[in-house]
Amino acid sequence: MAAPTIHFRIHFAKNANVGPGKIELLEAIRRRGSLSRAARDLGMSYRRAWLLLQSLNNSFKKPVTLATTGGKGGGGATVTDFGEELIRSYRRLDREISLVAAVRLHSITPAVARSTQPRSRASGRSLRPRSAPR
Amino acid sequence: MAAPTIHFRIHFAKNANVGPGKIELLEAIRRRGSLSRAARDLGMSYRRAWLLLQSLNNSFKKPVTLATTGGKGGGGATVTDFGEELIRSYRRLDREISLVAAVRLHSITPAVARSTQPRSRASGRSLRPRSAPR
Repeated sequence: MAAPTIHFRIHFAKNANVGPGKIELLEAIRRRGSLSRAARDLGMSYRRAWLLLQSLNNSFKKPVTLATTGGKGGGGATVTDFGEELIRSYRRLDREISLVAAVRLHSITPAVARSTQPRSRASGRSLRPRSAPR
Repeated sequence: MAAPTIHFRIHFAKNANVGPGKIELLEAIRRRGSLSRAARDLGMSYRRAWLLLQSLNNSFKKPVTLATTGGKGGGGATVTDFGEELIRSYRRLDREISLVAAVRLHSITPAVARSTQPRSRASGRSLRPRSAPR
């Protein structure tokens, strides 16, 4: 049985939270040098990417990206030192949480069912309770 | 600035994941002795609670709850030893992740904006990009 993976979101304050989506967006901006290309890389609409970035920049006193002008394609976006620190902190926390989880869940992991029914998803729509416990 | 809080979900396998909602449901079943009373406590529909419990019981080889019969109200549900272990492991992991996060995010926390704009939420509907970075 593979080690469990942990998905997490950091809540810094009301309307200031950071999860895997925003970090992946920052990493894609760093890689591609522009928000539109980053959005395309992630299969995300430009509008959604813009809102995520807006949310990040509103969450902190320092910007996570800066607009760049000129060059091929006529301008883009670059990740600031603070943005880099945010990426680095998140990824380091990610690795540490995975390590702690692997240790702390060692007694649970062997009990994971080998293959679970897709219909068991809580979001399933056609499933209706029949002989349900009260 | 308060310490950040971390919300997390454990992915054990395909269709086998455990997050705060399922753990709170198990804790409410333990407290109330029945799924319907647990659902009411959490302001959740019986159908939703039943699907979450079904999903949990399908995720593992061992059940997390057992139906009880008789007594006042004519039967209910009780949390098994394995269910208790799952609650305990999750809550312990929760505490440890909070501790690691507080340490690892100490350089980010002072940069959190004092009050962020509610309209900056990525799920906002009326906000449209104007002078957006490319």
